[in-house]
Parts: sequence; C-alpha cells; structure tokens
Amino acid sequence: MSSVDPHSLFERILSGDRFALSKGLTLIESTLESDKIKANELLVLVSQCDQSAYRIAISGAPGVGKSTFIEYLGMYLVNQGKKVAVLTIDPSSRETHGSILGDKTRMELLGKHKEAYIRPSPSAGIYGGIGLCTYESTLLCEAAGYDIVLIETVGVGQSEGEGKYVADLFTLLIQPGAGDDLQSMKKGIMENADCIIITKHDGDLKRAAEKTQAQYRSSWKQTMDRNRVDEILLATSHEPNKFSEIWNHMDAFLKKQNLAKNRRNREVFWFDKKLREAVISKYMSQHHDQIENLIQQIRDQGLFYLSALRSLLPYDE
Amino acid sequence: MSSVDPHSLFERILSGDRFALSKGLTLIESTLESDKIKANELLVLVSQCDQSAYRIAISGAPGVGKSTFIEYLGMYLVNQGKKVAVLTIDPSSRETHGSILGDKTRMELLGKHKEAYIRPSPSAGIYGGIGLCTYESTLLCEAAGYDIVLIETVGVGQSEGEGKYVADLFTLLIQPGAGDDLQSMKKGIMENADCIIITKHDGDLKRAAEKTQAQYRSSWKQTMDRNRVDEILLATSHEPNKFSEIWNHMDAFLKKQNLAKNRRNREVFWFDKKLREAVISKYMSQHHDQIENLIQQIRDQGLFYLSALRSLLPYDE
Repeated sequence: MSSVDPHSLFERILSGDRFALSKGLTLIESTLESDKIKANELLVLVSQCDQSAYRIAISGAPGVGKSTFIEYLGMYLVNQGKKVAVLTIDPSSRETHGSILGDKTRMELLGKHKEAYIRPSPSAGIYGGIGLCTYESTLLCEAAGYDIVLIETVGVGQSEGEGKYVADLFTLLIQPGAGDDLQSMKKGIMENADCIIITKHDGDLKRAAEKTQAQYRSSWKQTMDRNRVDEILLATSHEPNKFSEIWNHMDAFLKKQNLAKNRRNREVFWFDKKLREAVISKYMSQHHDQIENLIQQIRDQGLFYLSALRSLLPYDE
Repeated sequence: MSSVDPHSLFERILSGDRFALSKGLTLIESTLESDKIKANELLVLVSQCDQSAYRIAISGAPGVGKSTFIEYLGMYLVNQGKKVAVLTIDPSSRETHGSILGDKTRMELLGKHKEAYIRPSPSAGIYGGIGLCTYESTLLCEAAGYDIVLIETVGVGQSEGEGKYVADLFTLLIQPGAGDDLQSMKKGIMENADCIIITKHDGDLKRAAEKTQAQYRSSWKQTMDRNRVDEILLATSHEPNKFSEIWNHMDAFLKKQNLAKNRRNREVFWFDKKLREAVISKYMSQHHDQIENLIQQIRDQGLFYLSALRSLLPYDE
C-alpha cells in the first residue's frame, strides 16, 4: 500500500467513504514496516476526532449465537436510524491464518444494509479473543461516522483477556444449560461482563434458557459490586422486536458511564501491550542472527534453552 | 530464600529428598531477582541430568474431571511400582492470585501415597493454560527421580497454547455430550492432542460418553496425519482397573516417539518465550520512570497511547 497518503485517506474516511474506510483498516492490519508508519500517522489523526460512538463487545463460546445476535441487534439499530459498524473475528481462521466463513454471509440482512458496515478480521492465532488491530479498527470506524461499533470477540469469558479493553460495554452471551458450570467458572466470567444475555430463548430451549437465566441471576445479584446491566437478559432470533428491550438496557448502562475516563484508562492497557510488542520486535530484529544461531544449537546440539538465553542476556550480578 | 545454595540443593534433590524438591520448586517460582539467578544455576545443573521421565499433560475444560483422572491414573501407576509427580494448577487462582482449592485434598488417595508427589501451582493470570514455571518444574521433578510427571493444564484445547510444549504426550479429556460442538472447534482441539479420552463413562452418562466417543472417532480417524494414540478412549472412576488399558495406549505412544528430539524442538519454544519475557522485563525496569510518566499523561491528559509509544520508541524513518 505504498501509494497511500494518510492525510487524504483520513479526509476520505471522515467524509463517510466506505472504500476509504476499508483501505484504512487494511493499512492498519498491514505488517509492512512502511505501512506501519502510515497507519500510525492515520491513527494519530483519528485520535483527534470526536469519539462519540458506543463501542460494544459481544463475547461468548463458539456456537452460542454471536453472529445471529449481532445481526439482529444491528438490524434493530439501523432501523432506529443508527449507523452500525461490525468488527467480527472468524475463530476458524486461527488454524489457517485466513478468513474462511466470510462473516458477511453469516450476517445476510445486516451485510446488505446501507447504514451498516461489516468487517471480518482474521484472528491470526492470538489468545486475547480479539484481532491484533481490533482496538485501532474501532477508532477508525468511529471516525468514519458510525454511531455504534459492535465488536465480536471469541472465547468463553475467563480467557477473554482483551475484549474488555476495546469496548464501553462488554456483553457475554450464554448458551441455555450453561448454568451448570463450576461456581468458580461462573464467577470468572461474571467479573468481566457488564451485561449477560442468554441466547436461543425459543423452541426446545426456551425453558432451559429461563432456567439458566434464573441460575445466573442469583449469582449476578450477589456480586453486584459495580455498575452493570442489572438484569440477566434473554434473546431469541424468533422475536426481533425483543431487541428493543435489550438495547434499552444497554443504552441505559452506557448513558451512566464516564466513557471518556474509562477509555483513557483502557488506553493505558493498550499502551503497555503495544510497547511490549514494539520492544520485542525491535530486539528480535536487532539480534536476529545470534538468535537463529542459538536456536540451531538448541535443536542440533541440545544446548539448554536457559544457557542460550543467558548467553544473550546475562544476569547483572 | 537468600540462604539457598543451588549446588547443595541440587544434590539433595537428586538424592530424592522431597523437602529439597519442594524448596527447589519454590525457588523456581520466586520473583526475587537474587532467587532467579540461583534458580537459573539450579536448572542448568538439572539440565545435565538423565532426562528419562515421561512427561504427560492432562488438559480439558473445567469440570471435565481432570483431578479425578489424574488421581486414578496416578494410583494405577504407583501400584505398578512407578514414582509419580503431579503438577497441578488451580484455575480459580487466576482471579485471586493464590491457590484456593488445595489440590492435595482434590487427590486424596494419591496425595497420601509415598511414591507420589503433588505440587499445586497458582496459575497467576496467564493465558497459556499452565503455570509460569511449569516447564522448569517438570525438569526438577524428573531430576528428583520421578518416572512419570503428570501435568494438569487448564483450558479447552484451542486456547491451550503452552500445554503441548511441556509434555511428551498431550492428553485431552472430553466431557460426554461435548461432541456436538462446531466442526471447526473439534478440529482445533484435535490438532493439538496426542490422545483424547472421554470421561465419566458411567451411570447416567455412560451412553452419552459412548456416543461422544463415536463422534470424535470419525473425525480423529479422518485427520490421522501424524503419530497419535489411535483410539478415542473412555474413562470412569467406577472401574479403576480400566486405567491399565489407558496406560497401555499411552505407553505404546511414548515408546514410539523420539523423545530427545521432540524435547529439543520444544525447548526452542521455551527459549523464544523466556527471551521475550527477559527482554521486556529489562526494558521495563530501565525505562520505569518514563513509562510511569506517560501512563499518567494518558490517564490525566488524554495523551493518545500511540503518541506515548512513539515518544519512547520512534520509528526509524
């Protein structure tokens, strides 16, 4: 993407040009060193924009219905006159390093709506539950004028890690019947979530969903030690109208937050994370040949890995 | 632990002194800089020992029955005259940074046996599914003369990350009924595992366990692209005798491996990981004040985190 000028791209993104937004997101995801410098410039420009979109993370175990939930919540919001951006991750891309399912086809209605923008990202084998550039992508969608950014994150709560650092509201979807887990697991999940929603409240699973709701409700109320959506909610794709109720709860939560302050605190996390990545990356490229040589010695001659490490970084005794 | 001499501790560990082994493991886990140097010395000594123990990881989702499985497999092995060390992780310690359940009480029979040694470690909030020092702990147990080291890892396969780098055999326990997952999820799980065992093959769940076995079997056979335990096995705590069959499969797998070569390849992973940790740790302590100052500016003045990052590490344009 060597011909991209960050300033003109920024202007086009601000004007609502969807093609420019896609180009900007691709620039951010690029691993080329020259692109990284441009992406950084673009993001610094973006950081000076009005940051008034609601950023909402949608998390949950595989199969819980994240795509369906996002499709219906997104359709409800665009029908209310909102512009909605969706950042999705394809969990299966972890193994293949490429997007397989094609999230646009997973969200057929929303994907066709002119006020919605869906961007699938490969998860590229990371463990934090979100893509490598999801936070930056959120900032870009916000600058492009979307009112709400829905961020799909993978995982089951405990290993969620980074999802809670991208969003103003961290939503966890729970499968009916998943209330029988260990108490400690539920606790771990609930410590991260601002909002818990039981999916598939219909057909054969309707009763199970209500039972799970009741199980989570008692633990939820007991640990109501901070500001959260106070009800455990139910969702079904059979009654799209019910998404107004879900949205009302989310909206009320968001209106009560000091979003600017929360975001600054979350940026401390991103500063720390990106600093660590940059420090390592710099060290690794500076010592590339030495490191490769040591790896060969470990592999071929059985050099002990800690001895190899100490030959690079001796203890300061 | 400033009074510890690594050389004499090493001799005592070699002689089979359990107290010395515990002391060595505590030394390895210590975060004091002076202890780290001693731990490094101890480990370099240990790396020169005969490394002939079988290292077996036991993984699976919370509630699948990892402790019970380890207890019964461990009892089977000590009854066969083997010395067994168990390294466990308490998943609930993630939130509290301390061991709560007390793994010794979770494995009552094995915990009392004189040929078994159980060591619970706090998982200390990491995402790799094992403790920060689990690999080094395995080496120490091996030096202490244990024939088999059973390593409990947390997680559900996909987010397992590091478990497969500690062990010669990576075992995944599956809950009856867990075969209904997405195909892609099963694939991710199976790519890591050398051995899959369906637990709770008894009582109400007996039929479900067999059904799950059949479901995994078909996928397992289809993807038999490398050396693995070729059968999907069943386990129940109601028939401890059946653990001889499980062990026979594991033993046959282990005897077919080039353990030394595999271990050298895995040590490349640990070299890379520990190098990254050491590089970051050194940088962070060298730039502590600058970093703290930037964090304050992000928090109080809304300094953009990428601008903060670039003030520390400018791009080399």
